[in-house]
Amino acid sequence: MTTPLNERRIANAIRVLAMDAVQKANSGHPGAPMGMADIADVVWREFLNHNPTNPQWANRDRFVLSNGHGSMLQYALLHLTGYDLSIEDLKSFRQLHSKTPGHPELGYAPGIETTTGPLGQGIANAVGFALAEKTLAAQFNKDDIKVIDHFTYCFLGDGCLMEGVSHEACSLAGTLGLGKLIAYYDDNGISIDGEVEGWFSDDTEQRFQAYGWQVLKVDGHDSDALRAATLEAKAESSKPTIIICKTIIGLGSPNKQGKEDCHGAPLGNDEITLTREALGWTEGAFEIPADVYAAWDAKAKGSASEAAWNETFAAYAAKYPMEAAELKRRLSGDLPADFVANADAYIAEVNAKAETVATRKASQAAIQAFAPQLPEILGGSADLAGSNLTLWKGAQGVQDNAAGNYVHYGVREFGMTAIANGVALHGGFIPYVATFLMFMEYARNAVRMSALMKQRVIHVYTHDSIGLGEDGPTHQPVEQIASLRGTPNLNTWRPCDTVEAAISWKSALLRSEGPTALIFSRQNLAFQTRTEAQIADVAKGGYVLAEEKGELKAIIIATGSEVALAMEAHAQLEGVRVVSMPCAEEFVKQDAAYREAVLPSNIRARVAVEAAHVDYWWKFVGLDGRVIGMTTYGESAPAKDLFQHFGITTEAVVAAVKELTA
Amino acid sequence: MTTPLNERRIANAIRVLAMDAVQKANSGHPGAPMGMADIADVVWREFLNHNPTNPQWANRDRFVLSNGHGSMLQYALLHLTGYDLSIEDLKSFRQLHSKTPGHPELGYAPGIETTTGPLGQGIANAVGFALAEKTLAAQFNKDDIKVIDHFTYCFLGDGCLMEGVSHEACSLAGTLGLGKLIAYYDDNGISIDGEVEGWFSDDTEQRFQAYGWQVLKVDGHDSDALRAATLEAKAESSKPTIIICKTIIGLGSPNKQGKEDCHGAPLGNDEITLTREALGWTEGAFEIPADVYAAWDAKAKGSASEAAWNETFAAYAAKYPMEAAELKRRLSGDLPADFVANADAYIAEVNAKAETVATRKASQAAIQAFAPQLPEILGGSADLAGSNLTLWKGAQGVQDNAAGNYVHYGVREFGMTAIANGVALHGGFIPYVATFLMFMEYARNAVRMSALMKQRVIHVYTHDSIGLGEDGPTHQPVEQIASLRGTPNLNTWRPCDTVEAAISWKSALLRSEGPTALIFSRQNLAFQTRTEAQIADVAKGGYVLAEEKGELKAIIIATGSEVALAMEAHAQLEGVRVVSMPCAEEFVKQDAAYREAVLPSNIRARVAVEAAHVDYWWKFVGLDGRVIGMTTYGESAPAKDLFQHFGITTEAVVAAVKELTA
Repeated sequence: MTTPLNERRIANAIRVLAMDAVQKANSGHPGAPMGMADIADVVWREFLNHNPTNPQWANRDRFVLSNGHGSMLQYALLHLTGYDLSIEDLKSFRQLHSKTPGHPELGYAPGIETTTGPLGQGIANAVGFALAEKTLAAQFNKDDIKVIDHFTYCFLGDGCLMEGVSHEACSLAGTLGLGKLIAYYDDNGISIDGEVEGWFSDDTEQRFQAYGWQVLKVDGHDSDALRAATLEAKAESSKPTIIICKTIIGLGSPNKQGKEDCHGAPLGNDEITLTREALGWTEGAFEIPADVYAAWDAKAKGSASEAAWNETFAAYAAKYPMEAAELKRRLSGDLPADFVANADAYIAEVNAKAETVATRKASQAAIQAFAPQLPEILGGSADLAGSNLTLWKGAQGVQDNAAGNYVHYGVREFGMTAIANGVALHGGFIPYVATFLMFMEYARNAVRMSALMKQRVIHVYTHDSIGLGEDGPTHQPVEQIASLRGTPNLNTWRPCDTVEAAISWKSALLRSEGPTALIFSRQNLAFQTRTEAQIADVAKGGYVLAEEKGELKAIIIATGSEVALAMEAHAQLEGVRVVSMPCAEEFVKQDAAYREAVLPSNIRARVAVEAAHVDYWWKFVGLDGRVIGMTTYGESAPAKDLFQHFGITTEAVVAAVKELTA
Repeated sequence: MTTPLNERRIANAIRVLAMDAVQKANSGHPGAPMGMADIADVVWREFLNHNPTNPQWANRDRFVLSNGHGSMLQYALLHLTGYDLSIEDLKSFRQLHSKTPGHPELGYAPGIETTTGPLGQGIANAVGFALAEKTLAAQFNKDDIKVIDHFTYCFLGDGCLMEGVSHEACSLAGTLGLGKLIAYYDDNGISIDGEVEGWFSDDTEQRFQAYGWQVLKVDGHDSDALRAATLEAKAESSKPTIIICKTIIGLGSPNKQGKEDCHGAPLGNDEITLTREALGWTEGAFEIPADVYAAWDAKAKGSASEAAWNETFAAYAAKYPMEAAELKRRLSGDLPADFVANADAYIAEVNAKAETVATRKASQAAIQAFAPQLPEILGGSADLAGSNLTLWKGAQGVQDNAAGNYVHYGVREFGMTAIANGVALHGGFIPYVATFLMFMEYARNAVRMSALMKQRVIHVYTHDSIGLGEDGPTHQPVEQIASLRGTPNLNTWRPCDTVEAAISWKSALLRSEGPTALIFSRQNLAFQTRTEAQIADVAKGGYVLAEEKGELKAIIIATGSEVALAMEAHAQLEGVRVVSMPCAEEFVKQDAAYREAVLPSNIRARVAVEAAHVDYWWKFVGLDGRVIGMTTYGESAPAKDLFQHFGITTEAVVAAVKELTA
């Protein structure tokens, strides 16, 4: 540290705002903001290219606070640099309906690029931002004009580095050579349990060198060193850089700095008074002197930066009008104007073909049909391309072609999904990612984050049940579909044939307000015949696939591979209708009249059949119904043996209906 | 490679068994067994200290195949060395009811130490085995007699190393200095998508040096080098060792070796014929010459090893009879004879105290009450000891005291849980692990694995709902409890007060047949008054906490923090009973008469209330009932504001009951 603490007034503004807001909220984390204030000072005032008056500027540098519990650091920065985040907003830190929730959340304060808090995912999102920037730049920049050209800055802590997802994301970032990603590691040696040396003794420098990163080490309170390191990071264009910043957590608090006490609790009023003294800060709570505000204010500089970029973009548009229009469309998130018409034509074609294939194969055909018209698609799989069937004829790996449209993520489900969240957040792309449905669990919290952030990420999950066969119970989903269906804002589709599979892809691509999980079979599924009206109803999530013969007495509800069983049962029964329900979340959003028409409330003889955990279906069949499905783990055997073994058969469906209608 | 392939008859026995069995099953992974055969030859014939005639011998070396898709490698080894696994068993590879499922599964073939297949978890289990060995040794060995003294060998592949959980587990293994862990990395450069260099370019040597491991590099087909490296690994007692073995996947298959084609599909009959020629193997499918069997047979050597150990143990028992008896008890998994009586006395004491505290605090008190009598407990938390309240007065970190009973796992939920699975599998311990309920998701698949393997691992999850308050939706569970309840073999408890919390701990400790998730509140929960009979019924998972006044008209079902709301509603209503259901999985296992007595089937006016996703509860309230709970994500605010905001209130419960009974 070269400058005495009490002369660091600009950085100290962060320290006092953080400790004051946490104290007022009576909860929160002052330690990280106070420890990283000097780093933030250098990065945000000297390097970050952003415009507080337009947080949506397309070519802004992205900033991610991966150690999201230090949210007051980011709120202080947004406030001080001139975003629409007032001192009153800081005073309502962590209160209901405020713009300043406990962790940075997308859509609350302007300038928050991603929701962080779940450790390690922020740096993975940042890898996604950097990947999106590199890919979009390669797709649109010209030798003479660069329209996409920004850095991604990420702050992270010990917790992020201990989490496995940081390994997955940073390893891939190194392999992909994401040279415009710059991470600052807050190496303060303290985590919640105390001094980390007893549980975290990695040589982080060596670790990141192993990933192919540039690694720099500095005193995180030495502004000159931080400046020099950041310049060096920016100069290295072929490797991401991590700057390991040795810091003192809670710096400024005479009795708590350097200790876990200041990590996750208010300092207390007495200590705050002492800290103000140590910082030489004479203003009261939430008071920032005008000259300090002036030093932070980034509005003019940001507006000038954006104006300069607008000129660049205008020149680009003049010379490359089609590319410029396409880039604008991609950044807006709108699909091409003819997408729906083309998709419907494809669905009609699929219906006419009437093929019996695995829905994973139907999914691949849908990708092949839609992707050529959607250059915004950035596909990928966690090393299961040949099983998930996520490659299509125009797929090009970004590791070979920077302007490509497919990522070989390796065996990294969690990293893949969190990276895809970053790609979606960046804009310009619709990412799809894939693995076996079972290994969704490895990525589970990133799936949830895509839904919490309402991002259009398409999660492709194949090998959806005991139908995967011989790989056995470690690979056979049972309770996973229910978990996805319970995830707010997520749509979960389990199509029964080629037509439903194509419609599920169309629905996922159109769903700009959130993510979709598409669940496909390994094994062949029988094609079902439908009228035009039925085809139109598929998008409603549930519909009558087979009308009852005679008076309605019972309803069979099925999804995916079990729709065929339901249809076979239907052929043997009078007064029974079959409801196919590929997306229960969409069905429950339909109006009451439609739902009543499909599932009349007076019909209580209801049988649900799905090769997944039974518990989800009580919602639709009630206390008087039956559910045919799984309550145990699967077994290793050919699929046909397993359906028999677990009693998921046409005979069982028929018997259940007969029992209920006897 | 020093020996020509066609002179490696002993190792080639693995190659032919693997390719033959995969071919017969028409599915499976021949590449890894064929590539690792030479490594297996050295490790299993020259080093592994095991007894095929007694797979349960306590001091055996443990072997884990982390790349579990290579299961035929392990089945071939078990068969060849003399375990009760016949050639007929190998012929029924991947068939229903066989001992040889697609991935190695605990409880099917003897000698399988853990179920593998979900990548990266095997090496984490191996870290757990090594941690258990080190801790048990420190607790029981004497200067003059060592009764616990074995190695843990682990084979792993690229996939394991890409997965984040390998980072978490291996980083901690380095910090803890688990010197008796030896890993062999099958560095064949191939994963399912092809040559890994496009998505996996880590310098693994450097990475593991960063973790504090000894790293050795060898030609994985050079027996002398493998032998020398293994000796060096065994000699290094303060660090785990990884031996990076450069191998050729599918070695022996003229047209497919070194390519992804042989990774996960049968070689085909023609290629098998060519491979037999290349190997100089003249016998037919599944035929092993007698001299090769003789070379592999480990029965005599293993029996002698165990007999020698039995003598050591007898000497130990003679000199240290109390320790010997205690070690035998611990290895048997039996709790001390007086555990139940002591636990019941503690529960009575808790009931008498009638305290209103957070259930996480009640959990800590229960740990404090039970742990002193249970030295088999090996506790821990993912860097949230002070929040999860998992430390107790006798807790000692294993990083400071090798004979300790607490692991500071760091911020590594998945690694922690998979390590705990290994600890439980080793024997001698009951591990508990802790994090916030939300971050169960990071560990989700390891929780499932503990249930699939029926291991007594206690998963402690605190901060169980929007009741955690200000940290906001990233930290507030919604759909997580339903996901746990849907997990076969897992018991999930959400206690409502100190008495239910103490009983949940007792139940978890007694449940030797599987894991338990214990879900606790951050905030204080009101104590509930119970009769002796009610206290006895808590263990049944659901019971009538408050009888109806007058004739029964409606039932309120609640858990955890919402039981108090139900009781307040009860005070305002006639004809309404309150059912507390802390463990729905136990409740549904009760006989029909008990369930009917608690939830009479003719009473359809049912209201469930739980600050979690509503969908789980339709199972109990049916189409005519109501569920008061969550259908969206939470928000950041003080807990009391959130319960109001989301309408989880006494008033809402009262209104729902009145609506249903109007």
